[in-house]
Amino acid sequence: MVRIGILGYGNLGRGVECGIADNPDMRLEAVFTRRPPETVKIMTEGVPVVPAADLEKWQGRIDVLVICGGSATDMPEQTPACARLFNVVDSFDTHKKIPQHFANVDKAAKETGHVALISAGWDPGMFSVNRLYSSCILPEGKNYTFWGKGVSQGHSDAVRRIKGVLDARQYTIPVPEALEKVRSGLQPELTAREMHTRECFVVAEEGADLARIENEIKTMPNYFADYDTTVHFITMEELKRDHAGIPHGGFVIRTGTTGKDHENTHVIEYSLQLDSNPEFTASAILAYCRAVARLAAEGASGCKTVFDVAPAYLSPLSGDELRSTML
Amino acid sequence: MVRIGILGYGNLGRGVECGIADNPDMRLEAVFTRRPPETVKIMTEGVPVVPAADLEKWQGRIDVLVICGGSATDMPEQTPACARLFNVVDSFDTHKKIPQHFANVDKAAKETGHVALISAGWDPGMFSVNRLYSSCILPEGKNYTFWGKGVSQGHSDAVRRIKGVLDARQYTIPVPEALEKVRSGLQPELTAREMHTRECFVVAEEGADLARIENEIKTMPNYFADYDTTVHFITMEELKRDHAGIPHGGFVIRTGTTGKDHENTHVIEYSLQLDSNPEFTASAILAYCRAVARLAAEGASGCKTVFDVAPAYLSPLSGDELRSTML
Repeated sequence: MVRIGILGYGNLGRGVECGIADNPDMRLEAVFTRRPPETVKIMTEGVPVVPAADLEKWQGRIDVLVICGGSATDMPEQTPACARLFNVVDSFDTHKKIPQHFANVDKAAKETGHVALISAGWDPGMFSVNRLYSSCILPEGKNYTFWGKGVSQGHSDAVRRIKGVLDARQYTIPVPEALEKVRSGLQPELTAREMHTRECFVVAEEGADLARIENEIKTMPNYFADYDTTVHFITMEELKRDHAGIPHGGFVIRTGTTGKDHENTHVIEYSLQLDSNPEFTASAILAYCRAVARLAAEGASGCKTVFDVAPAYLSPLSGDELRSTML
Repeated sequence: MVRIGILGYGNLGRGVECGIADNPDMRLEAVFTRRPPETVKIMTEGVPVVPAADLEKWQGRIDVLVICGGSATDMPEQTPACARLFNVVDSFDTHKKIPQHFANVDKAAKETGHVALISAGWDPGMFSVNRLYSSCILPEGKNYTFWGKGVSQGHSDAVRRIKGVLDARQYTIPVPEALEKVRSGLQPELTAREMHTRECFVVAEEGADLARIENEIKTMPNYFADYDTTVHFITMEELKRDHAGIPHGGFVIRTGTTGKDHENTHVIEYSLQLDSNPEFTASAILAYCRAVARLAAEGASGCKTVFDVAPAYLSPLSGDELRSTML
């Protein structure tokens, strides 16, 4: 039995809680929160909601703690701090800050003999694993990653910060022609604009200047200026009815060549189509919780990523079972 | 530098030889053959072709020997025998005999302190890895594997054995409607006939009874009787012109559900589209040669499969480089 703790009870924390029920070798021990515990109602009967300040008291009662805060400000503090108390898994997803985060977490985990796995999920996570496998198999080739169709939380938030916007949802959408060109094996050079379009559904305040809002969105640096963006103004009812889900997904494609004169082309494609981004991320995290518990039991310590974990560690099945059923 | 030896110089052996040129950290040391060495002409300048009987003399000069014989009769003998002399990688692909093969190879490798990795390639191989990852992430779900469109060597051989057939090529083709049904997340139960069709291009002897040949193909147990099969009679010229390649590929799809009431559906799809089946298999084998050389250097021994190898072991890049470029 892998005893799981959850730190932070938002969409991701709830996803982890749901996922535990699908893994008979796991059990939820406690949910830790920075909010007043009595205000947090969880789904699992009989499991305590505990103030995050009491984490230390739970040492020895939890095999793996899942860090379910945000990557921007929570995880850079929480993951190293918690790795001093427990084995931990997080889904840190600020790609360019991963090396620094890794170093901080590795130090904490090594000094205290814990195993910490960072950046589990799908990107980083399963997309990363697929980039790595296919790059190793086809050294002469090129990787492409497309995201969507799906809701980008960061871009939705950016639209919400515009004056006169009550709520908004932003979808990132791969350009079908770009996907086809990549799959052809031609290894095209593609700009941001050629790979993705952005679509925004915006609820504006009554009487707001819609033309100004649309213009502010479309010209926003980093977020929208480099993309073809469509803006739809809708009512709050429409937003709630048609855009309540958090779908996402995408494609990792590598094309490459082999042969004496590189005359043969190969296409490796991995794709995800997810009804719920946080629940899928939570499901990947849980598979890595199993791996972390095993690595810890073997005496490992320090920070790991999905690159460092052999696939068999994710499974509840034995090596014999895996070889006879899945190989 | 990983020093590679190749045992057996057919399509796969040639693919391994080509692939080494794309991996700057690998070098071909020798090709071993059971044929008279002077009859085997390889592509790489300055590399010796050596009688297989002399393998033992090359101990210490080769880091990993790639077994490029056939799965039916060669590998069950060669892989355990060679694992007593070298670290080895094979692409043993008789799925139901893998447990026995694993046991034989494991014994030989453990007794002599070598690392042996069996069943590298794409199925078994990358398809297996993807079945495993997605099964662990979505425990509530169902796996599907589709093969093709591609040339099945075993089925082509079966057609060639029919009286009156001079040559033949058999393509396995996924049924598009079945693929779509699977991707919908409905988790359908599908029969062999519903998942794949088979298409044969046959060159018959002059005056042969074509109706009898077609009937013998379509009713052949195990190979064709359970499928909808189309037979085309063509000339030898047409066969050589239009069917000289060895393309293959396929799809591994898992669909599953998450959420409190399993209300959210997810689709994980991995697909390959390969111009050359043996060259892609060879490319995967080489990535695992790198991993085997590292495992051996770390002091590991015994038989491994793709399930037992962390992705980072396949890459020439360091952990730091991988985390900053691919995670």
